[in-house]
Amino acid sequence: MNKDTTTPGGAALGPGNYQRPHGRGHDELRPVAIQLDAVKFAEGSAQIDCGDTRVLAVASLENRVPPFRIDSGAGWVTAEYSMLPRSTHTRSPREVSRGRVSGRTAEIQRLIGRSLRAVIDMSKMPGLTLTVDCDVLQADGGTRTASVTAAYVAAAQAFGVALRNGDPEGWPLIDSVAAVSVGVCESTLLLDLEYVEDSAAEIDFNVVATGSGGLVEVQGTGEKRAYSRDELDGMLDLALQGLDQLVGEQQKALKPVMAEVEAVRERRERGPAAPRDEADVWRSR
Amino acid sequence: MNKDTTTPGGAALGPGNYQRPHGRGHDELRPVAIQLDAVKFAEGSAQIDCGDTRVLAVASLENRVPPFRIDSGAGWVTAEYSMLPRSTHTRSPREVSRGRVSGRTAEIQRLIGRSLRAVIDMSKMPGLTLTVDCDVLQADGGTRTASVTAAYVAAAQAFGVALRNGDPEGWPLIDSVAAVSVGVCESTLLLDLEYVEDSAAEIDFNVVATGSGGLVEVQGTGEKRAYSRDELDGMLDLALQGLDQLVGEQQKALKPVMAEVEAVRERRERGPAAPRDEADVWRSR
Amino acid sequence: MNKDTTTPGGAALGPGNYQRPHGRGHDELRPVAIQLDAVKFAEGSAQIDCGDTRVLAVASLENRVPPFRIDSGAGWVTAEYSMLPRSTHTRSPREVSRGRVSGRTAEIQRLIGRSLRAVIDMSKMPGLTLTVDCDVLQADGGTRTASVTAAYVAAAQAFGVALRNGDPEGWPLIDSVAAVSVGVCESTLLLDLEYVEDSAAEIDFNVVATGSGGLVEVQGTGEKRAYSRDELDGMLDLALQGLDQLVGEQQKALKPVMAEVEAVRERRERGPAAPRDEADVWRSR
Amino acid sequence: MNKDTTTPGGAALGPGNYQRPHGRGHDELRPVAIQLDAVKFAEGSAQIDCGDTRVLAVASLENRVPPFRIDSGAGWVTAEYSMLPRSTHTRSPREVSRGRVSGRTAEIQRLIGRSLRAVIDMSKMPGLTLTVDCDVLQADGGTRTASVTAAYVAAAQAFGVALRNGDPEGWPLIDSVAAVSVGVCESTLLLDLEYVEDSAAEIDFNVVATGSGGLVEVQGTGEKRAYSRDELDGMLDLALQGLDQLVGEQQKALKPVMAEVEAVRERRERGPAAPRDEADVWRSR
Amino acid sequence: MNKDTTTPGGAALGPGNYQRPHGRGHDELRPVAIQLDAVKFAEGSAQIDCGDTRVLAVASLENRVPPFRIDSGAGWVTAEYSMLPRSTHTRSPREVSRGRVSGRTAEIQRLIGRSLRAVIDMSKMPGLTLTVDCDVLQADGGTRTASVTAAYVAAAQAFGVALRNGDPEGWPLIDSVAAVSVGVCESTLLLDLEYVEDSAAEIDFNVVATGSGGLVEVQGTGEKRAYSRDELDGMLDLALQGLDQLVGEQQKALKPVMAEVEAVRERRERGPAAPRDEADVWRSR
Amino acid sequence: MNKDTTTPGGAALGPGNYQRPHGRGHDELRPVAIQLDAVKFAEGSAQIDCGDTRVLAVASLENRVPPFRIDSGAGWVTAEYSMLPRSTHTRSPREVSRGRVSGRTAEIQRLIGRSLRAVIDMSKMPGLTLTVDCDVLQADGGTRTASVTAAYVAAAQAFGVALRNGDPEGWPLIDSVAAVSVGVCESTLLLDLEYVEDSAAEIDFNVVATGSGGLVEVQGTGEKRAYSRDELDGMLDLALQGLDQLVGEQQKALKPVMAEVEAVRERRERGPAAPRDEADVWRSR
Repeated sequence: MNKDTTTPGGAALGPGNYQRPHGRGHDELRPVAIQLDAVKFAEGSAQIDCGDTRVLAVASLENRVPPFRIDSGAGWVTAEYSMLPRSTHTRSPREVSRGRVSGRTAEIQRLIGRSLRAVIDMSKMPGLTLTVDCDVLQADGGTRTASVTAAYVAAAQAFGVALRNGDPEGWPLIDSVAAVSVGVCESTLLLDLEYVEDSAAEIDFNVVATGSGGLVEVQGTGEKRAYSRDELDGMLDLALQGLDQLVGEQQKALKPVMAEVEAVRERRERGPAAPRDEADVWRSR
Repeated sequence: MNKDTTTPGGAALGPGNYQRPHGRGHDELRPVAIQLDAVKFAEGSAQIDCGDTRVLAVASLENRVPPFRIDSGAGWVTAEYSMLPRSTHTRSPREVSRGRVSGRTAEIQRLIGRSLRAVIDMSKMPGLTLTVDCDVLQADGGTRTASVTAAYVAAAQAFGVALRNGDPEGWPLIDSVAAVSVGVCESTLLLDLEYVEDSAAEIDFNVVATGSGGLVEVQGTGEKRAYSRDELDGMLDLALQGLDQLVGEQQKALKPVMAEVEAVRERRERGPAAPRDEADVWRSR
Repeated sequence: MNKDTTTPGGAALGPGNYQRPHGRGHDELRPVAIQLDAVKFAEGSAQIDCGDTRVLAVASLENRVPPFRIDSGAGWVTAEYSMLPRSTHTRSPREVSRGRVSGRTAEIQRLIGRSLRAVIDMSKMPGLTLTVDCDVLQADGGTRTASVTAAYVAAAQAFGVALRNGDPEGWPLIDSVAAVSVGVCESTLLLDLEYVEDSAAEIDFNVVATGSGGLVEVQGTGEKRAYSRDELDGMLDLALQGLDQLVGEQQKALKPVMAEVEAVRERRERGPAAPRDEADVWRSR
Repeated sequence: MNKDTTTPGGAALGPGNYQRPHGRGHDELRPVAIQLDAVKFAEGSAQIDCGDTRVLAVASLENRVPPFRIDSGAGWVTAEYSMLPRSTHTRSPREVSRGRVSGRTAEIQRLIGRSLRAVIDMSKMPGLTLTVDCDVLQADGGTRTASVTAAYVAAAQAFGVALRNGDPEGWPLIDSVAAVSVGVCESTLLLDLEYVEDSAAEIDFNVVATGSGGLVEVQGTGEKRAYSRDELDGMLDLALQGLDQLVGEQQKALKPVMAEVEAVRERRERGPAAPRDEADVWRSR
Repeated sequence: MNKDTTTPGGAALGPGNYQRPHGRGHDELRPVAIQLDAVKFAEGSAQIDCGDTRVLAVASLENRVPPFRIDSGAGWVTAEYSMLPRSTHTRSPREVSRGRVSGRTAEIQRLIGRSLRAVIDMSKMPGLTLTVDCDVLQADGGTRTASVTAAYVAAAQAFGVALRNGDPEGWPLIDSVAAVSVGVCESTLLLDLEYVEDSAAEIDFNVVATGSGGLVEVQGTGEKRAYSRDELDGMLDLALQGLDQLVGEQQKALKPVMAEVEAVRERRERGPAAPRDEADVWRSR
Repeated sequence: MNKDTTTPGGAALGPGNYQRPHGRGHDELRPVAIQLDAVKFAEGSAQIDCGDTRVLAVASLENRVPPFRIDSGAGWVTAEYSMLPRSTHTRSPREVSRGRVSGRTAEIQRLIGRSLRAVIDMSKMPGLTLTVDCDVLQADGGTRTASVTAAYVAAAQAFGVALRNGDPEGWPLIDSVAAVSVGVCESTLLLDLEYVEDSAAEIDFNVVATGSGGLVEVQGTGEKRAYSRDELDGMLDLALQGLDQLVGEQQKALKPVMAEVEAVRERRERGPAAPRDEADVWRSR
């Protein structure tokens, strides 16, 4: 650890000399694919592939609120995160075998929950709890940011189903939300770190932002050294650029949902709804 | 509960009047699909779809044996089973949140482990532990039998990788193994129960058998009434018929693995192996 | 493990050459003794000795039902199973020290509960929970089947006490239930395995049946090899023969209870009951 | 609670006016019976009945010492205590279901362990751990003191078996140990409280003493009021009187063990032992 | 362990030859300091220093009673005890990491709770629970007795605040309570053992008594040998002498509280209270 | 939640109209006091008061490394965090009673550990583990940042003691580290939030930085809305200004430690050390 490198000049940063696997550019995302409706029985679900990282996000809407929200007049949004034992290169015991959730898991669950709550107006979903389960099927770095990005898609589908069902309170989503990681390896700024990069990174940032560009969460850690304001600025620039692209992928995946949301809204504006019919549609899921 | 119906005449059994969902015949399996190599980082894996039931079985081979096997000179084979919280129609809390595995989960894990051990010669895998993780992504009945069927495929792929790697002890698989459920609803014998049938069944059987037709495990419960020897015989006949078809699906999925196993064996018989090369293949996974 | 022996001809089965400890015949139960009313403060209890296996079954009737039964209008029946730490040849830590019930314990508890529920009409015991605690004082094989057999006796005594107490809903027992193990050692069919036989058995069956001969539960595992339909049939025959004898032992032990049940019923049929008096009898326990 | 009665004159104490159940005298023990060798597979065991309180104490000698004793050159002695769920008038959940041992259980386990260690010279049992499991089958007050009294008998039998087995270090027991409760109800001193008395007692004492009359443990609690030195003296007198009688019961139960211990000692003094033979005797248990 | 010393003559006891650290006399307490109001947000608190032992006792009054007290019409008093990981010479893992409270902790918590309940009339605090948390910041022996002594002071301050708040039920404290340890090292009676003495002690007593001299709890253990009635008497004499001094320290610390309690009482006797005002005072804490 | 306010112009930020408790300026820290050597038996300790927030940080140096570091040739640094049950305005159950550490606690423990590791060269402490326990005695906001600031002081004292003890590997501290919170309430930037401000904050940032100004950790959450790059910049400026002042307080508290460290270094440079003597000093702690 060499304190002299704590605040390298901004000039050294950027493209740099670090060679990424598969010849990826320093500011390039891994190939992204988001598949809507990935499991059958849930209100909403999405599977996201970011390179070899694969996360299944499943949204459940339940007619209950946790005890501490009962008097709030509003609903609640929460998330859980878990890795399958062999999602990684070596098998890890299920957390249940240790009788408790690890610190890392707790931290990630809280991050996903806060990110969703930042774009959901919970007063529009009274009496309901939205739980998004993010289960990592394959882990190659960036599982927490992939979870946030997929969780939003699953949540939007679930609210679409609820709307179809005649939910009278309106649309709780006030913006979209996505997340990406950035970092510094060998003084080179990198977007969307995969596992080998993440392990080697000197600095590790996770950035969560809304579709309209507001920051929701910035978490930056100097893993091997402290970092300068210039480095922080460079990493934020890179992250926001990557987030733009992820927002596009989310919109593409949610196209059928949003079309139906528009149709329902229009129908409602035109005249009195036939709530029974819509409830039937809901039940048929 | 009416004891008079405990031992209905055999005549009433068989096709019967019970109407199955989607017009399925009483002796028909749901559509089955087994996808080999379903995740990237494990030695073996298979995803099975039996109708709307979907299980991901992932096999890990580790260079360790549990303490109670250290002096055995042989390896060990075990399994874990878990359902994603929203694999079902309503969300169930993760078991970790209750700090322990439920009785049902423990029972199923033990069943899968015993079934695999019945067709694996553990003396041929000294110092190794095979763990097959069966995670249910969608649950529509028959998750434990689908897990056994997929676990065998994942295990076979893992042993194929080990063989390629120059494992000198030979091939631990002495037979294949698969499982299916049968039951009785409204006095009608049914093969491969889906969730609504399972909930309504008077009698519920799970049958595990080897590819060569030997019985490995028979578990039959009178859920709503006791049953006769005739009924037991009818259910076993039906189960063995369904198992024949599942064995065919396993063979189809494992074709590339078995071809390579044959090739390796032939090469070995022809002359001195080049173990270094094969180890490289192994490492490249 | 030799697959060639998977389906030996039926001719080889039966008496065979295996020599049992103490010269016991292959189709002979160990000496059985059932002592009613084994502890003082419970509604029902029975201690069973099957050779050197000793289980204390204690039945508690409580004025509550578990949450998931509250709206059922019926009662609930459950069981717990535990081994004293030194019931076996070497001491095992209490399960509490591991913070959870083992898979084996969970499996056995569920088996005992299902077996009791198969012969109890829970609609006749609204608002009541029957819990039967099976604690193994000495373990020499067959503790789960001895538990089922004793649990029925303890349950019957508890219902007898409830009836005396003026319970207006009638008699919840619709049949009796007992259990026994069978297995195959060195190709010899054996009834009621003791510990050394159980450890050596190639095939291990537990059969639960009603007093009137209906099957409630069949669980058969090929521990060291798969087994044939002929073997399965031979084992069931042997088990049902042993169960006949156990039913007789249960009836002998329950004689005073059943006599009183008859007396109460007759008195009720004759005229208006004096519920106060009976309640006093109940309270005096 | 009336502070004026904190230190009643000694004159008021003693026989008093309190009427005990079954006409028992204030200084009378309940009927005591100690049955040696109560279970078959352990090195030592004893069942004690003190009125309706019944405890099974089982002693296990194992070839191991806990980590913190490995360098001590001595052995270790410990105890566990548990109540069967329905040993009492109403059923209590097994502690395992709460995932931990209660404070009361922990307190009692520690008391039994200390009491045994007070009369066992652990340097005479190097490399060995003695664990005495005290399981309460019926509880009618005084289960902890009954456990101490029975635990000593089980321990002595276990050491007798070890001696027969040719244990070269000699006899670890340096004295015997027993325990009894005393208390005050309605200003009347009472010996050996049963459950209804224990619940009503103003003051509750447990006294553990050696066979030669030394005090090992005095635990006295003012449950409903503080107490005077005079009361403390009166309770100790009464306890020591009851302990005399319990020592006699222990000696009676241990007669065959002590006879054999004497015989082994004499044989050893006469000439070279034949340790192999004795080990065989040991193994045959 | 030498049984001959079990009952040494009383003559040998008393001052003796044992040299205490820092030249302390055998019947001398360590320097004591009690600081009232040690933390800001609780109803009552006290930090006690007994030599190098430091305990923070914090009293919380909450508007709830535990389920088992709901129908009692009275309140409840309980205590918790914990040591900071590095309160001792070597660090101990937090108990949470072991998932449960140790036996020692459970025993001490129960002792503190019983001691407080002995001087609190819980019928005067209906609907309220008093919890006193005793957290050991530095441990040099005698942490349980220091906890009792400080817990009383914290409890008294909390009741003082409640009284100021217009609590209509009156003053629940019927006496004060304090505790001290005594023991025997090398046949010398010692008051208030510090850690090195405690580790070496042959006999270890904890005595809890009320301010008016009544005994609440006597717990005496022969750690290395049994002890005589004479020794017990000597230890009780010494303990009561030390307790006199601790009562004085408690009174000194509580002076401002007791002055205010007197003032409130006088005001109430003079005329109708202005409960609103007092509630404001309470709220302003 | 109003998306229009997501990126308010920079002009609105800064002093603003929000009135802080006690008339504190928006860029003012609460009064800070750091007391070195707060407990007696640990290698290092510091108590920090930031307004009404009080944290006790205790550093333990142990001769062990966790399993995953054994082959690293370096030491390990970790931290634990806990709140006393009544450190807050209402009592919270001890986490132990829930059998596991909460997500919040896990998150904070990891933050403190990472912050310390950022300024400690673990290769200079081979075979040693430094554990800093941060126990919150009073909580009024900012407990995690106060913990980081105090933990550094405790760690430095512990390393000073180790150096005195003749530790040959040199000085592991390569910089100092401190932390502070910033946030936005009613569009006003605030430094060092107390509890009421923290609860009301729209945006909440924790910033950890080294004494030489490098960033170690930036965690910023939009609790009630997203935030702009301008806001992020303003908060970082404010945080770094507050951190300057905290660095000064750390230096003041550590003056005696650093003086001794200098003295030891000089002595070493002058000639051969007398390590035995220094070890004695170390032992005398």
